[in-house]
Amino acid sequence: MSKKILVLPGDGIGPEITRQARRVLEACHAAGLDIEIDEAPVGGAEIDRSGVPLAPETLENARASDAILLGAVGGPKWDTMPDIANRPEKGLLALRKELNLFGNLRPALLYPQLVEASSLKPEVVSGLDIMIVRELTGGIYFGQPRGRETREDGTRYGYNTYIYDEHEIRRIGRVAFEMAQKRGKKLCSVDKANVLEVTILWRDIMNELAPEYPDVELSHMYVDNAAMQLVRAPRQFDVIVTGNMFGDILSDAAAMLTGSIGMLPSASLNESGQGMFEPCHGSAPDIAGQGLANPLATILSVAMMLRYSLNEPDMAERIERAVGTVLDQSLRTADIAYEGTRQVTTEEMGDAVVAAF
Amino acid sequence: MSKKILVLPGDGIGPEITRQARRVLEACHAAGLDIEIDEAPVGGAEIDRSGVPLAPETLENARASDAILLGAVGGPKWDTMPDIANRPEKGLLALRKELNLFGNLRPALLYPQLVEASSLKPEVVSGLDIMIVRELTGGIYFGQPRGRETREDGTRYGYNTYIYDEHEIRRIGRVAFEMAQKRGKKLCSVDKANVLEVTILWRDIMNELAPEYPDVELSHMYVDNAAMQLVRAPRQFDVIVTGNMFGDILSDAAAMLTGSIGMLPSASLNESGQGMFEPCHGSAPDIAGQGLANPLATILSVAMMLRYSLNEPDMAERIERAVGTVLDQSLRTADIAYEGTRQVTTEEMGDAVVAAF
Ligand SMILES: CC(C)[C@H](C(=O)O)[C@@H](O)C(=O)O
Ligand SMILES: CC(C)[C@H](C(=O)O)[C@@H](O)C(=O)O
Repeated sequence: MSKKILVLPGDGIGPEITRQARRVLEACHAAGLDIEIDEAPVGGAEIDRSGVPLAPETLENARASDAILLGAVGGPKWDTMPDIANRPEKGLLALRKELNLFGNLRPALLYPQLVEASSLKPEVVSGLDIMIVRELTGGIYFGQPRGRETREDGTRYGYNTYIYDEHEIRRIGRVAFEMAQKRGKKLCSVDKANVLEVTILWRDIMNELAPEYPDVELSHMYVDNAAMQLVRAPRQFDVIVTGNMFGDILSDAAAMLTGSIGMLPSASLNESGQGMFEPCHGSAPDIAGQGLANPLATILSVAMMLRYSLNEPDMAERIERAVGTVLDQSLRTADIAYEGTRQVTTEEMGDAVVAAF
Repeated sequence: MSKKILVLPGDGIGPEITRQARRVLEACHAAGLDIEIDEAPVGGAEIDRSGVPLAPETLENARASDAILLGAVGGPKWDTMPDIANRPEKGLLALRKELNLFGNLRPALLYPQLVEASSLKPEVVSGLDIMIVRELTGGIYFGQPRGRETREDGTRYGYNTYIYDEHEIRRIGRVAFEMAQKRGKKLCSVDKANVLEVTILWRDIMNELAPEYPDVELSHMYVDNAAMQLVRAPRQFDVIVTGNMFGDILSDAAAMLTGSIGMLPSASLNESGQGMFEPCHGSAPDIAGQGLANPLATILSVAMMLRYSLNEPDMAERIERAVGTVLDQSLRTADIAYEGTRQVTTEEMGDAVVAAF
């Protein structure tokens, strides 16, 4: 039976980058991959159409798909919407939560061809290859109670709840330990156990899991120190596992170490291997529609989809090799272009990857 | 009447760095500053003595002081204490809370003599001068309810509460706007208003304050993007204001951009100008007692004390100039030493600053 892929272009540069990634998916189809591709609006585009960021029929469609390819959501047009419950981001958060996509994999990988793009010294970052495993459906993003209220004396206050139970921690812990087993066998769990009780439990559960993975070396680091160490000596890390909020912050910092956030894909998986795949970067409304966007992060997200949801590691590698080839050919979109390389448009980059596939 | 200064050396390298900073205070005294200096243990040292990280009489002493100089607290010896409420860090958190030291100033300043120490390229960081204003007595560090519990079915869970009211936000906002007025007139408020309700209130209050400071340009940034921008192009920032948890993470990342965390002081102030001053770095137990620690962050904390709590800006500048002089003399402790500089001990560095004062 053919696998069902749902493409959700979203906002800003979302449509133009998913268009190129879709061409790569179609190249896989031509090469024998049995897939059916569907497409639907999400985020601001869906708000403009129907008033909500995620239509019920799109959610049903997503549930019935084997994998989802998302562009990006959000933009200034919807940033001033007073109702946070109905902003573009809520479409994304609802997809994560409803599909139970708790396991977020965010690689920070420095391509040797792009070492100059980093703001860090080459001797600090060359060869960088970190995998951040972020819990994506719990923690302070979803904790109850939450809200804004006014006390009797008229004082406004706001609050959110940072909460995890041991099952949530254990299942993301297992994803991270298994990832470490397949990689450099080092796992660093990031918490703030010297201040936050919820992260003391986090640390306890990681320690309880460790004996099941005797080949993995587990360490713990406070989040402030982790932010520092990522800047100081990022190559000390192999796999990092952390909660939703810390993962949001650290994965963006780690991605930026490479200097090429336009190159970085991500995967969000549930327990049955169904997944949503998206570039690490945002919707970049300022450059939308100008052919400036880098489609490679989205194309590499297709590779992650093949590896993690469709069980097609060879096809995934073919895509990754094709991306390596276009970089070797010195083709660069504006974000990664410099003296001596050839600047191409979003579509030309798609052409080149399809040609190299 | 002479001003009262309480020195709290703490743990690890705390005693050796505060010893040198105290010599600088004594040099100020000799130069006419009317002060009385007292000293007491805190953190692990106090746990070892009396079983708690902050003795009641030390808290009273701190209340009665005009300013406090803290070394650093904590270390592996106390990290495994099961009771989080009695770890060394709690002594520090209790001092902040009891003295109402809500305004935490954390400069990230790159000394021209030390530009090589940064892991970032010189063209990205040279001239870096950011002031992070972190709220220090509220947010998730102190929010109730908090704890670890077990559900009826035996599932363990942990939780903390991220809460702010408008008064807490407004008073730290004012500190930040005033700081921006004295500096480059740019203030960036960092939140996660696309996900967390408590930070929507944060953003609202900052916007409400803005008209009172028409000379300051206020902007807002999500915390994940801020972590990225600090790595990508840190000089875009002048003053950053944020809550306790985000401030903990971002100020450490910003400090590390300079490559010389051994150089960075901090101030924590209450509404009456009373303050606690401490280096940004930790207690570094691995190098304690070996004369390797850099006392300059603590010495520069004395300069902040003179400026912010004792109203002695000229004396503060004398200290800062003396630090500049010893750097110009190529004197370096181990953490900032490289080819062509002269490596000195903690005490020799203190000697040199006192001589240059
Ligand atoms: C858009 C936003 C809600 C989202 C998040 O905070 O998770 C984004 O920053 C991300 O990291 O995917
Ligand atoms: C020691 C710890 C409790 C403290 C904090 O998290 O505030 C430290 O990291 C700091 O930033 O001063």
